[in-house]
Amino acid sequence: MITFLSGGTGTPKLLQGARKVLDDPEISVIVNTGEDIRYQGGHISPDVDTVTYLFAGILNTTTWWGIAGDTFTTHGIIREYLPDAFISIGDLDRAFQIIRADLLEKGLTLTEVTREICRHLGISANIVPMSNDRWTTLVRTAAGDMHFQEYWVRHRGNIPLTAVIHDPIPCPPAAPGALDAIRRAETVIIGPSNPVTSILPILSCSGIREELQGKKVIAVSPFIGDQPVSGPAGQLMEVMGYQADSSGVMKMYEGIVDLFIQDTRDPVHVPGAARYDTLMKTPEIAGNLMRAILSHT
Amino acid sequence: MITFLSGGTGTPKLLQGARKVLDDPEISVIVNTGEDIRYQGGHISPDVDTVTYLFAGILNTTTWWGIAGDTFTTHGIIREYLPDAFISIGDLDRAFQIIRADLLEKGLTLTEVTREICRHLGISANIVPMSNDRWTTLVRTAAGDMHFQEYWVRHRGNIPLTAVIHDPIPCPPAAPGALDAIRRAETVIIGPSNPVTSILPILSCSGIREELQGKKVIAVSPFIGDQPVSGPAGQLMEVMGYQADSSGVMKMYEGIVDLFIQDTRDPVHVPGAARYDTLMKTPEIAGNLMRAILSHT
Repeated sequence: MITFLSGGTGTPKLLQGARKVLDDPEISVIVNTGEDIRYQGGHISPDVDTVTYLFAGILNTTTWWGIAGDTFTTHGIIREYLPDAFISIGDLDRAFQIIRADLLEKGLTLTEVTREICRHLGISANIVPMSNDRWTTLVRTAAGDMHFQEYWVRHRGNIPLTAVIHDPIPCPPAAPGALDAIRRAETVIIGPSNPVTSILPILSCSGIREELQGKKVIAVSPFIGDQPVSGPAGQLMEVMGYQADSSGVMKMYEGIVDLFIQDTRDPVHVPGAARYDTLMKTPEIAGNLMRAILSHT
Repeated sequence: MITFLSGGTGTPKLLQGARKVLDDPEISVIVNTGEDIRYQGGHISPDVDTVTYLFAGILNTTTWWGIAGDTFTTHGIIREYLPDAFISIGDLDRAFQIIRADLLEKGLTLTEVTREICRHLGISANIVPMSNDRWTTLVRTAAGDMHFQEYWVRHRGNIPLTAVIHDPIPCPPAAPGALDAIRRAETVIIGPSNPVTSILPILSCSGIREELQGKKVIAVSPFIGDQPVSGPAGQLMEVMGYQADSSGVMKMYEGIVDLFIQDTRDPVHVPGAARYDTLMKTPEIAGNLMRAILSHT
């Protein structure tokens, strides 16, 4: 069993490659839920949705969120009335958000809800949220504290940040299924997701770091030079006091990671790192990267 | 100004006729909200929706609920996962329920939300909910108390009732706009809606009965013999201790109504009633009924 720690864009690309090399039942994914948000009566779990849709073969891999070929009938009306409706939700996508909210309200845990959706979609990989409890990533700006989705989707990351805040404090326990997925793993792979908003929340859930001790952990850097492969990692790294490059990522993962992987083009030197093409412009390149990673296990 | 008291099926048919005789700005409609329900994160106001869609020219007049030509993309997925999702919601229809829930959450009253939706849809008739406060119609059954929508939509009215219950007690004040619509009316028309679940809730809102005093009020019976023209009026009338026919309806409206209108085919004799074709199988027949009613004003 190979277990991934995943956010919503970089790691799913690597998972696309993993599916070329491994069978789905050999794959576990512990997914960040720090960007979960109650929205228009549904419960959006953006990273869980992306990973789930990927394994179901229905992910829109142009945008890396939402469902391929989805329509936006409901959203099209809503945005005429509610100019602050900043998340575009497809009609199929919305169904899963309503189903999640409904099942949570009936008392199921987020792990159980995710399992139920995976079962319906015929997914044989093991997808588990990092925690069954809410742990929300907020950012502090001159306009006040806001949900990360508001910063990233509404403001497109174009406002200065002064801090990253997690709510509530202390962070909740990891979901038992997440700890179990590490326990059963031969290797744990920290994918090239946003270190601050995707990976750090997972690592912060109580129990995760302890469970990672003694495991072989391989991390893939999401940076090439000072440019993150996708998303707003740079500003967030700096706000957290880390250098916005692979060396900062390695520092953040210190004491956890056994092998660090950088892109061949990355000008930053991280001692001991292995280097491969991490840009994953095609599923084939992602498959090659995955094969290279597994050659170290 | 002609002001109607309306539920969700019979009176909207009469309103379709009214629009052939009157200009929309001459029409006010006070709408029952006793069947309002929070559902899948939206706020459904079934009767307000039907009346609104009618005046916007987008009502599905085959079913008399929902929007003509609507798709059911989201609902199609939801019902696979949630067998208890008993209300089929179209994608466009769902948008208005989400908009309503959002604006209510932002602190607007139901009257203001309705006005906002009407403005967007270019409606010049005056559509006002009976109250800005929740007042829900429940029915008591052997399986427990349930929302009227659950009884009528999920169980299709096929379970025995022992009581009609309104929650909360006492009933709330009428919306100021509803009282104003009566005050400004030359004539008030109680349409052929379900007397128990559509009209009685409106009449119960505090202030409505007082405002109706001194107004010319014309009521159209929803019964022909012991058969309601549509919906579950029969069982509900009996549970309330009224005869399930036009005489029971007249008794229920006693002290309010100046002129009672029955169908020409109705075998029940109500003294002093005028008789017309009330079945409204076509918009033309509805228009004729409306002309006949107005001939008494």
